Amino acid sequence: MEKNLFELPQGFRVAACSSGIKKSGKLDLALICSDQPASCAGVFTTNKVVAAPVVVTAPRVRNGECQAILVNSGNANACTGEAGLVDALRSGELTAQALGIATELVAVSSTGVIGATLPMACFEKHIPLLAESLNCGPIDAVATAIMTTDAFPKKSARMITLGNREVRILGVAKGAGMIHPDMATMLAFVLTDAAIPAELLDQSLRQAVNGSFNRITVDRDTSTNDMVLLLASGAAENAPFASDSPDAETFNQALREILLDLAKMIVRDGEGATKLVRIQVDGASSEEDALLAARSIATSALVKTAFFGEDANWGRIIAAAGYSGAEVEPDRVSIRFDNVPMVAAGLGLGPEQEILASEVLKRAEFTVTVDLGLGSGCAYYYTSDLSYDYVRINADYRT
Amino acid sequence: MEKNLFELPQGFRVAACSSGIKKSGKLDLALICSDQPASCAGVFTTNKVVAAPVVVTAPRVRNGECQAILVNSGNANACTGEAGLVDALRSGELTAQALGIATELVAVSSTGVIGATLPMACFEKHIPLLAESLNCGPIDAVATAIMTTDAFPKKSARMITLGNREVRILGVAKGAGMIHPDMATMLAFVLTDAAIPAELLDQSLRQAVNGSFNRITVDRDTSTNDMVLLLASGAAENAPFASDSPDAETFNQALREILLDLAKMIVRDGEGATKLVRIQVDGASSEEDALLAARSIATSALVKTAFFGEDANWGRIIAAAGYSGAEVEPDRVSIRFDNVPMVAAGLGLGPEQEILASEVLKRAEFTVTVDLGLGSGCAYYYTSDLSYDYVRINADYRT
Repeated sequence: MEKNLFELPQGFRVAACSSGIKKSGKLDLALICSDQPASCAGVFTTNKVVAAPVVVTAPRVRNGECQAILVNSGNANACTGEAGLVDALRSGELTAQALGIATELVAVSSTGVIGATLPMACFEKHIPLLAESLNCGPIDAVATAIMTTDAFPKKSARMITLGNREVRILGVAKGAGMIHPDMATMLAFVLTDAAIPAELLDQSLRQAVNGSFNRITVDRDTSTNDMVLLLASGAAENAPFASDSPDAETFNQALREILLDLAKMIVRDGEGATKLVRIQVDGASSEEDALLAARSIATSALVKTAFFGEDANWGRIIAAAGYSGAEVEPDRVSIRFDNVPMVAAGLGLGPEQEILASEVLKRAEFTVTVDLGLGSGCAYYYTSDLSYDYVRINADYRT
Repeated sequence: MEKNLFELPQGFRVAACSSGIKKSGKLDLALICSDQPASCAGVFTTNKVVAAPVVVTAPRVRNGECQAILVNSGNANACTGEAGLVDALRSGELTAQALGIATELVAVSSTGVIGATLPMACFEKHIPLLAESLNCGPIDAVATAIMTTDAFPKKSARMITLGNREVRILGVAKGAGMIHPDMATMLAFVLTDAAIPAELLDQSLRQAVNGSFNRITVDRDTSTNDMVLLLASGAAENAPFASDSPDAETFNQALREILLDLAKMIVRDGEGATKLVRIQVDGASSEEDALLAARSIATSALVKTAFFGEDANWGRIIAAAGYSGAEVEPDRVSIRFDNVPMVAAGLGLGPEQEILASEVLKRAEFTVTVDLGLGSGCAYYYTSDLSYDYVRINADYRT
């Protein structure tokens, strides 16, 4: 029998339901549970306005152990004051009671409307039912239950070998724009049956997030609820490995790929996005400079509207590098769209190249490479175009 | 006879023409000339990709003396390499020859398409004609000749008394978005007949720019050609005054008002803008924090689309303050739209207030006041909404 890549890693069970938080009757509440306390790591929003579930979950995850994740969509429980904190704590308690585990082992997570309190009756009724219906997957119902304005559910998986053990890593994510109307947030939950201590898990997760979720932009807005959790059940029973071992590199590589897959899906599903564009900056004075320039180009409204218009407007790209704070010497800059050179030594290469570049811009995915010609610093960023639909989606009344 | 506020300050003459740079046949070349060398000050783009006219003009202005400004629209002479530098120098020479003054006393300025070299034949032919047609105003033809995608010419003036002398200050500006398709740039030229040494002029200009052009945002993009020049002919023959004198304060106040007038006109004329919104942040821990929060709110694509949708979406505003880098304690934040309170102690004040706030959002101009409740730091920023038309204008092909 062929193995299913997306099978749930060993030691986990999941369930999802429609609890009534979303008026539409769509899936809106999910539970992920490990048979034993899993080692865990988490990365949380850097916004100083932090939603209640992040306030509750972050310190618990820092302890390095987690056994259950309760996540709802349709309501972010953000800007809800003390009442919101009480609700987040209560939903954790309900989960712990239903599963017969310690409250400190429960992570809670929310995404949806800002400023409205959670409809706790939905939680009181449905958490026990979810606990009873826990199953071995597939994870698709969970991936769907965490969606807000997402156009499609997002999952990615890898199978690797650690020692002589087969290990699964499976991730789901939601997000379509850093914040939607009031539908806040990027969430990602990654499960693995690898046996890895929490400290190593934390290192791996931070590296992987830095190369993925921290390298995408839809609209520069950072939500109050962003959360990435990584749980390792240990059920694959691989031998322990050190942080500098080949096994660690195998695991890290797979985790990076999964998070980058998910991150690119979020950009592709960006509000109103019609294109996924990789901004690659090479030849910067330093890696920091490369990142500054890449981020500046990737977030420029003028660059993003030009992508939407399929206009190979290199003047905007060079200007965005110029105000990024990175060292830039215009007469050393070269730019290409996929393999089509557009600019060399700071000067446009003429109308024939523009015609070739316009063909590249018609693609759904392409790479803009900007070589600053100064050093060896490299960085990338993924971005979407800025379309009428972005404005339409975000200008709509909340009601 | 009633005095005309917009009369040209004494000691200046101006001229404008259609030189053929713009294919449309619209005004595209202007000359501003002082009878005697004027004291001067300038502020230039901070973009590291700097257009040739800025490279030529900035060091000349730093000498503190200027007698003529030659400005063209339709072509930015940016990203044009050495050829562009030669052209900028040559257009200055042509101006100096036509006027019989030293080349170092000529400022050159350009705005328009990036990456194309200047059509020098237009300059060779029309600069001598402009010099012959210099006149005492009005300044309107100059204000029109510097327009690119601007919907209307922009001028502002004040009359003040320094000692017992009547003094005029008159400014023109162009800009509609920090950069347009390839129509780069914000330009402003301010003329006064006050007698003021260059050092004082420089102080006054920097303060005034900081409170005006540095407090507006249409799309965060900083152009390669931005330039603000202030020339003082001295023809009003007021007595000299010190930088801490009442006369200095009178002058500074008038200059601030003129630049803020012009800056607000640029936002009102922002690409696709339908609203002019003042973001006022009070109660920050410091002035720096207030500015960080105000800028973050003013530049958020989600906040700007909500303004376009006339949606009093305070969740986005509080989130944008939260990720600004400023100190923010959510439960101390209050927000109001003009005089309508929306948020107190970090919590929404309910649907009745939302209805009242929606009325405010229908106005063409309003103020959003965010009080962080932490200290006495204050700052403001002017912004526009983000509309379909912004996308349409910027996604259009350049051709």
